[in-house]
Amino acid sequence: MAERVAFIGLGIMGQAMALNLHKQYPLIVHNRSANRADPLLAEGAVWAGSPRLAAQEADYVFLMLKDDQAVRAMVEGPEGVFEGVRPGAIIVDHSTISPETTRNLAKTAKSRGVAWCDAPVTGGDIGAREATLTIMVGAGAPEFARIKPLLAVMGQRIVHVGAVGQGQSRKLVANMVSGLTLMAASEGVRMGLALGLPLETLDAVMTHGSAQSFELAKVLDRLRHANYAPGFSVDNRYKDLRLAVELAESVGFAANMAKFAEGLFGEHLKAGFADWDEASYIKRWGES
Amino acid sequence: MAERVAFIGLGIMGQAMALNLHKQYPLIVHNRSANRADPLLAEGAVWAGSPRLAAQEADYVFLMLKDDQAVRAMVEGPEGVFEGVRPGAIIVDHSTISPETTRNLAKTAKSRGVAWCDAPVTGGDIGAREATLTIMVGAGAPEFARIKPLLAVMGQRIVHVGAVGQGQSRKLVANMVSGLTLMAASEGVRMGLALGLPLETLDAVMTHGSAQSFELAKVLDRLRHANYAPGFSVDNRYKDLRLAVELAESVGFAANMAKFAEGLFGEHLKAGFADWDEASYIKRWGES
Repeated sequence: MAERVAFIGLGIMGQAMALNLHKQYPLIVHNRSANRADPLLAEGAVWAGSPRLAAQEADYVFLMLKDDQAVRAMVEGPEGVFEGVRPGAIIVDHSTISPETTRNLAKTAKSRGVAWCDAPVTGGDIGAREATLTIMVGAGAPEFARIKPLLAVMGQRIVHVGAVGQGQSRKLVANMVSGLTLMAASEGVRMGLALGLPLETLDAVMTHGSAQSFELAKVLDRLRHANYAPGFSVDNRYKDLRLAVELAESVGFAANMAKFAEGLFGEHLKAGFADWDEASYIKRWGES
Repeated sequence: MAERVAFIGLGIMGQAMALNLHKQYPLIVHNRSANRADPLLAEGAVWAGSPRLAAQEADYVFLMLKDDQAVRAMVEGPEGVFEGVRPGAIIVDHSTISPETTRNLAKTAKSRGVAWCDAPVTGGDIGAREATLTIMVGAGAPEFARIKPLLAVMGQRIVHVGAVGQGQSRKLVANMVSGLTLMAASEGVRMGLALGLPLETLDAVMTHGSAQSFELAKVLDRLRHANYAPGFSVDNRYKDLRLAVELAESVGFAANMAKFAEGLFGEHLKAGFADWDEASYIKRWGES
């Protein structure tokens, strides 16, 4: 019998991932704003009116949501996933949330005979569209074996990184690094422009030496096309920086740069850029 | 007639670059510590007892020195390059120094009928050995045309970025970004280890997503092999961060991250790591 698969959360990342997954595993979908499901319904996916309804027939329930609060809102409560999901099913959470929330939700799931796997992703909206994501999975070995074929439709590198919650820890660390790298790249590029250096030679010099990074390439590309549509929003980037700093504090690790950067990026958020792509940080110094 | 080429400054980068250049342009060499010339003399390069003597027969004088002070010490004074160099020659400075010092030295050179080109490099010790450096040249167009074939022996991307001094500005911007990226990568990797995440999965996750950078790959490699031989020393990295912050201040640009990072990296320098590779920043939190 074909696997029955639900996908909840059709934001920029979730929609792109669901479209890929749907090519091989026909989906039941749900999203807070129904219109985000249109591209999937056009491809034959089935709409469910609530998380509970999406989950009740499914062997696998995928989540791709904004933050801890959004995940809890979709899985807890009378119309939530937990009310519908059947024993033996697996919930796969692609959202980036705190390891602590993850472990708490996994406990509730377990009490209903359901496995919870955290499977945050990295690679950005491009990776989501092109199915080249890296997916970091916190799960038991049998659950990992079951979900791996489905994850492989959405990503290129599917890494079993440890027990439930450890996917989130690794993701927060990776995102802390990419966030700091984004800010470093933005600051350097803007300083170059402030020094009167043309963008073309900045580009030629910086993308082929030791300053090279995924985030630098992104910043230069966004700047060149004056395109700040999210992508990865300032709001989400700030959330991940905050979660990383909290995680560091929970183990007494001095994340000096991250803590300082959280403050700077928070100012950018408050300046009205919440819904812009993170690359808009390059506008922190005014228009470029 | 074959070009006569002098190379002064045989540190880690300079020695590797000179060994490449010598394959096509037999060199006259000089260095403060004579023993650093041994590998070149073994290949048939000629020793000169002073910068003046190295320069006096040369059509091209290459410099690869530590900082502003070291460059001035080699070119000014009674035994300096300026005392020996002949009108019509070109001095090519691969050192990373301040744009201001560069412009001052170019003026002195010009008064002696000599052209000064700033040609700082990026790509690290690996790039120097493998001749894959990016070289950012500040020079007049005729001088750039003359030196380009020689630079192409040492690097892969030879970019004419503008007038004298502009190579240095671009280099400082690029180095600011790579320095901040190094610190971000180190902080993230150490936080991962503090969270009990094994190095192998950190590696798998971080080098294939949006955290990816040249510096992250370097940090992971250095950590894996417990190898902190310079490479690019903490002392040099700190110097470049300081020069970048000064350059930012000179144009009123708020280099917030760089300024904060300069303080953190300065603490690492003072903790006794001056001569270690920059990747030793990963030891800031104690032994890993």
